[in-house]
Amino acid sequence: MLDYDQLSALAAILRTGSFEKAARQLGLTSSAISQRIKALEERVGAVLVVRGQPCQPTPAGQRLFRHAEEVALLEAGLGRDLGAFADMARTPSLRLAVNADSLATWFVPAMAAVDAFLYDLVLDDQDHSADWLRRGEVRAAVSSSSQPVQGCDCRYLGRLRYFATASPAFMERWFPDGVTPERLAIAPTLTFNAKDMLQSRWLALVAGADLSPPTHWLPSSHGFVDGTLAGLGWGMNPEILVGDAVADGRLVVLLPGHPLDVPLYWHWSRSAGPALKSLTEAVLAAARQVLVQDLP
Amino acid sequence: MLDYDQLSALAAILRTGSFEKAARQLGLTSSAISQRIKALEERVGAVLVVRGQPCQPTPAGQRLFRHAEEVALLEAGLGRDLGAFADMARTPSLRLAVNADSLATWFVPAMAAVDAFLYDLVLDDQDHSADWLRRGEVRAAVSSSSQPVQGCDCRYLGRLRYFATASPAFMERWFPDGVTPERLAIAPTLTFNAKDMLQSRWLALVAGADLSPPTHWLPSSHGFVDGTLAGLGWGMNPEILVGDAVADGRLVVLLPGHPLDVPLYWHWSRSAGPALKSLTEAVLAAARQVLVQDLP
Repeated sequence: MLDYDQLSALAAILRTGSFEKAARQLGLTSSAISQRIKALEERVGAVLVVRGQPCQPTPAGQRLFRHAEEVALLEAGLGRDLGAFADMARTPSLRLAVNADSLATWFVPAMAAVDAFLYDLVLDDQDHSADWLRRGEVRAAVSSSSQPVQGCDCRYLGRLRYFATASPAFMERWFPDGVTPERLAIAPTLTFNAKDMLQSRWLALVAGADLSPPTHWLPSSHGFVDGTLAGLGWGMNPEILVGDAVADGRLVVLLPGHPLDVPLYWHWSRSAGPALKSLTEAVLAAARQVLVQDLP
Repeated sequence: MLDYDQLSALAAILRTGSFEKAARQLGLTSSAISQRIKALEERVGAVLVVRGQPCQPTPAGQRLFRHAEEVALLEAGLGRDLGAFADMARTPSLRLAVNADSLATWFVPAMAAVDAFLYDLVLDDQDHSADWLRRGEVRAAVSSSSQPVQGCDCRYLGRLRYFATASPAFMERWFPDGVTPERLAIAPTLTFNAKDMLQSRWLALVAGADLSPPTHWLPSSHGFVDGTLAGLGWGMNPEILVGDAVADGRLVVLLPGHPLDVPLYWHWSRSAGPALKSLTEAVLAAARQVLVQDLP
């Protein structure tokens, strides 16, 4: 079998991005960490880490990182079944891919309900988060895709409801005579990043045309809300994040009859299934509190 | 001179990440965009774009992208001086590097005060945001570094004050007998990402030792606050984001006499200076509202 002290060293380097930080985290010297990686590379017959700021895994290093996490999860299950309680320092890390708006609206309570893990969150767009699972770089993902991932199970979570919103001053300046396709074509909008299709999807739905208004780029869920409140542009914001601001008039809904619902699914690696059972239950419970529950 | 329609096509591709989205944004067909890039690559004698998801610039493409943005900024100044008012569709894009906690606390009002730009925000750690400016990939940056960047001017903004905070339940579980180095070594903490040194810096200050407690990784300013409120771990949170929660007892300050202050500086490219004058004023004014102003 492999040397798991060596694998732990590899995982710590890839998680912290450097040999020095990994050494500190494991209570070792940098040279001890280097020796472990060198020995593991010789054992496997491949380079595992590309040194840099941060250090990056080679494909072989990525595959071993995944293996180290899977084994740590299995060991945690063993500890539970045998009645042995691991101290927090040995709590396994669990890498998850979550979309930023889920983190901003409903996901934190699910994590907090299960203290069996140290969470290692990767943020990506809901249309792309399942790719992390497909590539084996995370153990579970919140995704808008219902398409099964090989070796993974999937549960429907509900729909995150978005409304196109803007400040009253912005409405007055850009939509003085109502929200028309002509004005939607020129009023500045907000876009989270190049993967964010919500604004263009909503525009296609309500304007029936392929509009590309000028846009600001603002890669933060709360920054998006703050930018909308400040009048930078209109943007698709989760109803739960802007409900209060809409109720007290700080924000206006562009077309109240036209929300955009994004279905979300919880995908998890079957090999990690037993270890993830309580987290899956917590994720479903937290989603039920916030997401719209009828099927799309 | 270069063909600026070709340069606009390049900038749109690198901003949106794809030929198709760039075509839509400029109201062109995909094949027209491809032809422009091909012509520009022939003119320059170098490949400019590596196709992919998203499309990435080559070094030559990156340099031309920067040039296109600089020219757009100069043209905007020309429009102002000649009394011609550009419509919003021709508003120049301005790429800025900002740390996530600045975006979450004080930066949005500065952007909203100046509507001469479409903002294109890059988020990076305050210790690394100036690198974007050094590499010529942004026109200005909010950074913790006072070190001058070549070709750039710099102004001190003030200090963002952080407190180590945790939920009352977390305090009871992990610090029942007070906050001691022994408990700080094992109580789980939060870390934004591998670049985030705030927790370890604070630990070195208060514990006088190089502690590496187990950590969750949570790359979002508000996620960090929510994770702290939910009891996942303790974390360094900006005073302005957690003041209310501390006041009403939902959060506890670990060692009230030991804040951590991060000095922030506004660096901007001198060549973009005239175009950025009003933004620099707005940035200084917004910083004064939130940041601690006495010199460190």
